Amino acid sequence: MTKLLAEYQDNEHIDSFALIKTAEVRLTKTGKTYISILFSDRSGDLPGNLWDAEDNQIKTLVPGKIVRLQGVKGSYRDQPQVQITQVRLTEAGEPDSPSDFMVHAPVKESEMNEELNDFVLLITNPTWNRVVRKLFSQYNDLFLRYPAAKFNHHNFSGGLAFHSLSIAKLAKNISNQYAQLNQELLIAGALLHDLGKVIELSGPIATQYTLAGSLIGHIALVDEQIVLAANELHFDLQSEEMIILRHVVLAHHGLLEYGSPVRPALMEAEVLHQLDELDAGIQMMTSALDKTDSGTFSDKIFGLDNRKFYKITDQD
Amino acid sequence: MTKLLAEYQDNEHIDSFALIKTAEVRLTKTGKTYISILFSDRSGDLPGNLWDAEDNQIKTLVPGKIVRLQGVKGSYRDQPQVQITQVRLTEAGEPDSPSDFMVHAPVKESEMNEELNDFVLLITNPTWNRVVRKLFSQYNDLFLRYPAAKFNHHNFSGGLAFHSLSIAKLAKNISNQYAQLNQELLIAGALLHDLGKVIELSGPIATQYTLAGSLIGHIALVDEQIVLAANELHFDLQSEEMIILRHVVLAHHGLLEYGSPVRPALMEAEVLHQLDELDAGIQMMTSALDKTDSGTFSDKIFGLDNRKFYKITDQD
Amino acid sequence: MTKLLAEYQDNEHIDSFALIKTAEVRLTKTGKTYISILFSDRSGDLPGNLWDAEDNQIKTLVPGKIVRLQGVKGSYRDQPQVQITQVRLTEAGEPDSPSDFMVHAPVKESEMNEELNDFVLLITNPTWNRVVRKLFSQYNDLFLRYPAAKFNHHNFSGGLAFHSLSIAKLAKNISNQYAQLNQELLIAGALLHDLGKVIELSGPIATQYTLAGSLIGHIALVDEQIVLAANELHFDLQSEEMIILRHVVLAHHGLLEYGSPVRPALMEAEVLHQLDELDAGIQMMTSALDKTDSGTFSDKIFGLDNRKFYKITDQD
Amino acid sequence: MTKLLAEYQDNEHIDSFALIKTAEVRLTKTGKTYISILFSDRSGDLPGNLWDAEDNQIKTLVPGKIVRLQGVKGSYRDQPQVQITQVRLTEAGEPDSPSDFMVHAPVKESEMNEELNDFVLLITNPTWNRVVRKLFSQYNDLFLRYPAAKFNHHNFSGGLAFHSLSIAKLAKNISNQYAQLNQELLIAGALLHDLGKVIELSGPIATQYTLAGSLIGHIALVDEQIVLAANELHFDLQSEEMIILRHVVLAHHGLLEYGSPVRPALMEAEVLHQLDELDAGIQMMTSALDKTDSGTFSDKIFGLDNRKFYKITDQD
Amino acid sequence: MTKLLAEYQDNEHIDSFALIKTAEVRLTKTGKTYISILFSDRSGDLPGNLWDAEDNQIKTLVPGKIVRLQGVKGSYRDQPQVQITQVRLTEAGEPDSPSDFMVHAPVKESEMNEELNDFVLLITNPTWNRVVRKLFSQYNDLFLRYPAAKFNHHNFSGGLAFHSLSIAKLAKNISNQYAQLNQELLIAGALLHDLGKVIELSGPIATQYTLAGSLIGHIALVDEQIVLAANELHFDLQSEEMIILRHVVLAHHGLLEYGSPVRPALMEAEVLHQLDELDAGIQMMTSALDKTDSGTFSDKIFGLDNRKFYKITDQD
Amino acid sequence: MTKLLAEYQDNEHIDSFALIKTAEVRLTKTGKTYISILFSDRSGDLPGNLWDAEDNQIKTLVPGKIVRLQGVKGSYRDQPQVQITQVRLTEAGEPDSPSDFMVHAPVKESEMNEELNDFVLLITNPTWNRVVRKLFSQYNDLFLRYPAAKFNHHNFSGGLAFHSLSIAKLAKNISNQYAQLNQELLIAGALLHDLGKVIELSGPIATQYTLAGSLIGHIALVDEQIVLAANELHFDLQSEEMIILRHVVLAHHGLLEYGSPVRPALMEAEVLHQLDELDAGIQMMTSALDKTDSGTFSDKIFGLDNRKFYKITDQD
Repeated sequence: MTKLLAEYQDNEHIDSFALIKTAEVRLTKTGKTYISILFSDRSGDLPGNLWDAEDNQIKTLVPGKIVRLQGVKGSYRDQPQVQITQVRLTEAGEPDSPSDFMVHAPVKESEMNEELNDFVLLITNPTWNRVVRKLFSQYNDLFLRYPAAKFNHHNFSGGLAFHSLSIAKLAKNISNQYAQLNQELLIAGALLHDLGKVIELSGPIATQYTLAGSLIGHIALVDEQIVLAANELHFDLQSEEMIILRHVVLAHHGLLEYGSPVRPALMEAEVLHQLDELDAGIQMMTSALDKTDSGTFSDKIFGLDNRKFYKITDQD
Repeated sequence: MTKLLAEYQDNEHIDSFALIKTAEVRLTKTGKTYISILFSDRSGDLPGNLWDAEDNQIKTLVPGKIVRLQGVKGSYRDQPQVQITQVRLTEAGEPDSPSDFMVHAPVKESEMNEELNDFVLLITNPTWNRVVRKLFSQYNDLFLRYPAAKFNHHNFSGGLAFHSLSIAKLAKNISNQYAQLNQELLIAGALLHDLGKVIELSGPIATQYTLAGSLIGHIALVDEQIVLAANELHFDLQSEEMIILRHVVLAHHGLLEYGSPVRPALMEAEVLHQLDELDAGIQMMTSALDKTDSGTFSDKIFGLDNRKFYKITDQD
Repeated sequence: MTKLLAEYQDNEHIDSFALIKTAEVRLTKTGKTYISILFSDRSGDLPGNLWDAEDNQIKTLVPGKIVRLQGVKGSYRDQPQVQITQVRLTEAGEPDSPSDFMVHAPVKESEMNEELNDFVLLITNPTWNRVVRKLFSQYNDLFLRYPAAKFNHHNFSGGLAFHSLSIAKLAKNISNQYAQLNQELLIAGALLHDLGKVIELSGPIATQYTLAGSLIGHIALVDEQIVLAANELHFDLQSEEMIILRHVVLAHHGLLEYGSPVRPALMEAEVLHQLDELDAGIQMMTSALDKTDSGTFSDKIFGLDNRKFYKITDQD
Repeated sequence: MTKLLAEYQDNEHIDSFALIKTAEVRLTKTGKTYISILFSDRSGDLPGNLWDAEDNQIKTLVPGKIVRLQGVKGSYRDQPQVQITQVRLTEAGEPDSPSDFMVHAPVKESEMNEELNDFVLLITNPTWNRVVRKLFSQYNDLFLRYPAAKFNHHNFSGGLAFHSLSIAKLAKNISNQYAQLNQELLIAGALLHDLGKVIELSGPIATQYTLAGSLIGHIALVDEQIVLAANELHFDLQSEEMIILRHVVLAHHGLLEYGSPVRPALMEAEVLHQLDELDAGIQMMTSALDKTDSGTFSDKIFGLDNRKFYKITDQD
Repeated sequence: MTKLLAEYQDNEHIDSFALIKTAEVRLTKTGKTYISILFSDRSGDLPGNLWDAEDNQIKTLVPGKIVRLQGVKGSYRDQPQVQITQVRLTEAGEPDSPSDFMVHAPVKESEMNEELNDFVLLITNPTWNRVVRKLFSQYNDLFLRYPAAKFNHHNFSGGLAFHSLSIAKLAKNISNQYAQLNQELLIAGALLHDLGKVIELSGPIATQYTLAGSLIGHIALVDEQIVLAANELHFDLQSEEMIILRHVVLAHHGLLEYGSPVRPALMEAEVLHQLDELDAGIQMMTSALDKTDSGTFSDKIFGLDNRKFYKITDQD
Repeated sequence: MTKLLAEYQDNEHIDSFALIKTAEVRLTKTGKTYISILFSDRSGDLPGNLWDAEDNQIKTLVPGKIVRLQGVKGSYRDQPQVQITQVRLTEAGEPDSPSDFMVHAPVKESEMNEELNDFVLLITNPTWNRVVRKLFSQYNDLFLRYPAAKFNHHNFSGGLAFHSLSIAKLAKNISNQYAQLNQELLIAGALLHDLGKVIELSGPIATQYTLAGSLIGHIALVDEQIVLAANELHFDLQSEEMIILRHVVLAHHGLLEYGSPVRPALMEAEVLHQLDELDAGIQMMTSALDKTDSGTFSDKIFGLDNRKFYKITDQD
């Protein structure tokens, strides 16, 4: 019973523990009640319908719960699903920590934390260094546990840190190749650029947009945090240092139509935007190709204009 | 010598006082130095070239200075200009206040200030009222004297207040017609929406973008001011009241491609955006048609997709 | 049995009279015949499927008929529906007027008619006044009973008049605030702008596009009507008065891509276009928020770029 | 002195009669008056400046006049121009008919008139035939003498007829190849589609937009004419015949953003639109390549997205 | 049993031979296996589901097979379908050639071949003639049997030749009307422009994109073929003849966003592009209107911006 | 006389050798002949006008010639220019090699050649390695001396190699960070992607588009070269290796509207496209900021949507 959901073959009998990620009560066309459940463990998601659901099932089989799932693996419209034969909440002695059933970044939190600290050391400008340190002392935990998005790229626990640190790595390498780039401004921007997501999103499980997330958005939210930090540290908001740090973060979506209120007007802002797109793109392609057989095309990738990508034959 | 620049006819001899708005030293194709000057008084602008400029003229005839201008009115490429015969700084006993030579809003500062106070009284929600009052106690003077833009609409002294108060009037009328609109939220948004311009722009004379204006923009700047005010007043940034006040202001450009980081997601935010466009549009058309003869078309209006507008024959 | 369809709770037994708005005969995947019916009363619409439909049901349960509907209220894919237990045509003594089951404008026809007459009195220009009066003497009834659209905004009986009169009210208020606007041209435009809909659409019940509606469109159709009226009144089509009246109406969609053959080139044409958008937008948001709980977001609104709008908590 | 303007070589002395097409009085930068004149004969246009213009020259050298022009051919910014040595109005015994100096369609009016009549005979549907005949009995002369546009394609005398008849020819050929096309509807559409230009434009010399042209546009204007003709002929505007005839004409710009209030929804409407583009495109390319040397690229063609076209080496 | 699939009425019993075009094994929501089959003969396609499919049915009822199909004709979501009662592979003595069950171009292969040869004779330029002949000697068979597309226009056996020859016919006629067009270049372009489809697509049955089709596309593929042919014939790739032949083919999609790497820069390239659109458009409209009743609108046509087209009443 | 053109101050007397890059003979408005010359040395360009040019100057002062230039440095419309006092061809004993007066890549040809060889060694796939080696044995010299563009980025001698090798460096670093990328495919793509420019452009001096460049474009031209190389090496064009190598090169502009006939459909193709944009962007910004004072904004950069970039104060 230690098999992961993704490891079962078609038509194989499933008997595993799983986290309920979403659960929606629906009617069939002919009026019968069922629950459409998204089961999940660290190998990914598997949907299934519980037919003729009873009232106490409707009440207890809710998002965040861990269950023992039994059934048969099949597929519906080319997507895997489970034909449920039985599902119940776990009991004493069985697994009970949601965190064990979530997809995690491929690097441990502690390692990411060390990386973060190493990058902060590269920021020698005292204004930038203190703003960055103040914000990470405040939001360190959330930074390490939050996803980078609800859908699209890096939508797993730790995704925010994993994505931000990947960009910081790119920033470090590229500013070595191009000496004209201000390395520490790039790194500060890489670490801060998506930090507003810890206010925009509800958390790593059943991720939703908060009200502030919907109505203000993570770009204005991280700017708010930088402004408040600078205010508390008594830094002058009209100084060039503060203005360009905020600019690099505000402009990171690159285009106004992607939600940045200003377009990049510093070389570092333009480069940070491009590195953000590069890392997000690679993560989306990698994640899609991981589920694709060699010599075939992936599913359409929403965040890349619905393109399908081909997996080279000998590249397994 | 009391005639205004716009009152002279073609080929008439000019002898008036004027403010130098811009002055650029250039070479002719054959290498001679001249100064391209934009003269201005409260009737508008008039360009002219000072040929064979001498060094002390280059040093003294600079933006912000008041001069006595003599010459002949002509036109170049369909635009009025002056053929300068003489130009010198004003002397003791002659006019010396730049403010007397600027285009002003058609309403007095003191009246606009009263209107502002009356509108603030309509905001009975204590959170919104205190934020608005705090910001206007801080920026009242600049609000009453700044233009609303460098070019385009309301680009005159007092334009910021004149534009904001016009929208507030529209907001008041329209929320009377549509009872479903929250009048005080609309009015608070109308008053605050462009307040970031007092940081974005350099002031009413020879208006330029500040560094913060170019790299952060007036939308994020007014949000910064609201955040700092709320912080000082100990209001909760996560409360619905604060979130929707910020939203209404952040979303007022309506579309991401116009620089709002979020699109309107409140009925009041959508309406404020539309009233902003309506007032700006009417001001641009009015200003263009003021210079147009009945029965003919105006110049192209940049802010309205370069359309020309027709002035109805009997509408003078 | 006086309860309206929208007043039933989930799982409650329904027993009400209703109008059949649409009825489509379909096969299940396994080949059985059923009728997919849209029931309707003045509280809104409710879909339901009549399984194993018999031939005489297929013949009699058609759009425009009034039925007694019995069943249970449920939902399918988050949309309310009814599980039909019985449905039959009404009999003698039961309701038989489709008009009683339609959604109506929130103002009575007679009141709207008075408002219309009041607005016509404000049009003192004799050419415009006579054209407007001629057309409303011809189309008064249809104007008061037609919807303003098949979908989107004001798609209820009387919607055309309700929408046109709202804009006329806005026009009157706004031309009071901005004296440079020609009030009577704006009002004439407001009343006429959508009048072509009485030819474009089939009527208030089961609204469809007519052939002329599909191939010519309401903008060219209202222009046709103005041209014919002017012709009969012996007005000169080359006079400025006639040209600008037609222009204001032809340009009211604002952009070529929205179907206006010319863009607004009169201040009044631009303002009329913006007021049209403002009123349509407010109506769509109001209608969506009426079905939304406080503190949550509405469904996506098609006519507003599929945005969802938030309903403020204390705004019930 | 029989040489045409286009036949002179660079640096050759010019002595020819020419029509003044446009004449604008301007100031040099140093304030001297000159007239910028566009001379023209049936070989094309040639601009030149008359320096130090005297008052009586300003009064007499105006558009529509025929002059004797003397000077030297040169070029300014890669465009041919004339260095004027002398210019005066023609005297008794010298040419005096502007029509002799205009660019004309490459086919005679009388031939085009015959072609027109032949095409009308192909329209056997009595409704369409009578509408077409009524309109051409009314506008025959203007149709044969007007240009098809102010700029862009077919902007010469007779261009409207030349363009419309070319499309009718294409329509005839193509409906022979594709039997599913209604030939007479296509031909009626080809003849009528641009007829509104006789109201939209001021005429073949110094062509301007009329007020109706600017505010209503040739598409709604031709629809107006068809409606009035049908009205006078007592045809039913709601008949399919009338609706589809109007549709074919209204939709001929193909896209809403090009000014058609409806997109083509008949096979014949779509085909007419494409033939219109085809003929206009070929005319623009031909006209540009006529001025281009073999083996080089033409100037940019505004109406074809500013593309330059290459002239094949052996294709003279 | 000689009836074609399209000839059966609703509810009529079907007993016909058919080709299996696609066959997908799926699960019902409740987990039962069925095969979703697309049956086809030269009258068109008909989908149906084989419920409770057995293993040997799953193995044998695959694309390309001919079967005897029994069932009842019905419809599902407005699309015709068959309720299968029995389906089995054909036996000895019954039809066995897939080609007999495919939709074919309305002209015979042999006739199209003759037309092709006639057109090649019109290409007298020896370079173009030899390149065209070389490629058609190589790809003649595929050219005559391939469809012109997977979906959209001319997606039937022989569609590639039928479409290319229609354009060649248009090219011949139009270059007769406009003498300035190089007829043989146009014809060579018409014949070659889509020839890359024989590499891009898998063939006339169950048409798929090949790997080269997906990753290189038919435009670069036909260019590759022309380059290789010219190389083998020892023609100079830098000669104007070769450059313009390749250009006409490379640019035939007209716009970069439609996949041409260069926009048309020869009059013939622009015209070829427009003729391609014209023929494809007419074919799509014809095909949609063939399935439409007079006086009603067709289904939306994907390749024409999802427009619906109206079928004129008397046009059957 | 060893000073470079860019080293002179305003108003300083110039006496230097320079290359004539472009020379156009023009007329003044008053009809006098002058030559508009672009002088150039390895510090950049400097325009100047030679007034009252004589015939033998017009004949000898042509692009590619080296001259001794004397005059005074000034500026015209904010751009530096020279007021020429004397200019003559260089004589025996004075400089005569155009190459000494061109802007060169900041790395020597020999070093770039070594780098190129090192990168080729990293391509171990024998198909890709042999195609790359074949093409570089053929075009090595041109690759090292050509610019990467006529305008925009890397428009200097050696720019093609400098740009391609920068991308190869990025490719190497980034495929170290992301192990899922195929490093050798990325490097092969980086080296080949712009190689078609050696056919598209005329060379490093007075760079123009060739006929093949204008009508076919560098993307189809490099594909042509790969196809011919593969053909000669007897590689199968249908093999996955050849298809994906061509794809990576064909797709490198990323979007169809930028001239790629296919969009990236391999992870490596997408990444190569992004690295191309990154390097081009950094080069354009660096080049603009090199001419910008700290604390001010650069000129608009055409290739970056006409944005201006700010130069940080302490970043000299």
